[in-house]
Amino acid sequence: MSKQVISTPVIRRLPRYYRFLGDLEHEKVERISSRELALRMGLSASQIRQDFNCFGGFGQQGYGYHVKELREIIGGILGVREKTGVILIGAGNLGKAIAAHVDFQKCGCSLIGIFDSDPLLAGTSTAGIPIMPMETLDSFCRQHKPSVAVLCIPKEAAQTLVEILISYGIGGFWNFSHFDLRVNNPDVIVENVHLGDSLMTLAFCMHQE
Amino acid sequence: MSKQVISTPVIRRLPRYYRFLGDLEHEKVERISSRELALRMGLSASQIRQDFNCFGGFGQQGYGYHVKELREIIGGILGVREKTGVILIGAGNLGKAIAAHVDFQKCGCSLIGIFDSDPLLAGTSTAGIPIMPMETLDSFCRQHKPSVAVLCIPKEAAQTLVEILISYGIGGFWNFSHFDLRVNNPDVIVENVHLGDSLMTLAFCMHQE
Repeated sequence: MSKQVISTPVIRRLPRYYRFLGDLEHEKVERISSRELALRMGLSASQIRQDFNCFGGFGQQGYGYHVKELREIIGGILGVREKTGVILIGAGNLGKAIAAHVDFQKCGCSLIGIFDSDPLLAGTSTAGIPIMPMETLDSFCRQHKPSVAVLCIPKEAAQTLVEILISYGIGGFWNFSHFDLRVNNPDVIVENVHLGDSLMTLAFCMHQE
Repeated sequence: MSKQVISTPVIRRLPRYYRFLGDLEHEKVERISSRELALRMGLSASQIRQDFNCFGGFGQQGYGYHVKELREIIGGILGVREKTGVILIGAGNLGKAIAAHVDFQKCGCSLIGIFDSDPLLAGTSTAGIPIMPMETLDSFCRQHKPSVAVLCIPKEAAQTLVEILISYGIGGFWNFSHFDLRVNNPDVIVENVHLGDSLMTLAFCMHQE
């Protein structure tokens, strides 16, 4: 597939298509029209056709989409068969919840290590992943070459750590610390997660009612 | 302010504006131009002006925005001074992490109760909020009238519970269960959170590099 720049909203919808197609496959649905898929997803059929056209379009007029094939193609675009190495920093409640709740494998990732500065946690594990002391981060990264770090630590600690992690080869940050991490390095990708923004949006929509 | 329909992307950007303005206030910045604000937020200045025009526009040409005033106006639109009652269902790792990590008050909400089906958890508390048995949900809702429920339980349990919660007066769901909750009731608002989608987007952007 020739590389082209895809807009962020389209990129953000891809994982959702992938999930819905997975559900359809699970329900043994073989084909689906853009109209039916749109209904299920709360999108418009033309939106779906437009999105898929960014990748060359996957359907045939009047025939609909082949669920399994389409899911495989989108999965391929998303790189779900890659095994991107991920480390998680901060094994508090949130870090443990993310380690246990997020299906890293399904996302094309592999959570290979958790690090925490609390010496009492060293040697324990969460979700089957060992928790290691921060002092071993350097040697771990050199040996296992993870490319993504999940940040579940306070803002101040995160800001200090980011440059160090970049020097260890980390090229992507999944940031749960309470600030918008911005890195002045075009090779580093940041995904900031602000759960509060999502709750505020919900509360706003309720007051609009 | 006269009610008008605001597009979802604009609504989703409001909490982010609110956060950035809070940071600016914290840094004792009194005024900011749309250009400077845009730079900080990684948006375009015209985007910001367009967004604010949806609410009547808040700035004066050549003068910029008054940070404190603007933050208060946006906070008012978001309803951050409301105290929307929230309950959380499921006090596992994820539920506990959300109770501890999310600043409900800052979002105009108040987390007033946590419920779990595990009898061993009843009587304990997390983040200072008591964990109660599911059997008391009905009477609790009648007495305290929460309007939002956070769902941190498996998909199957969530699907069964939603109709019951609606009958108890819940009008908003913040859903962390692994499925897209859809409710056929125009008065009920759903915000589905899929952390995996966010990780997949990050992984995709890294492979694009």
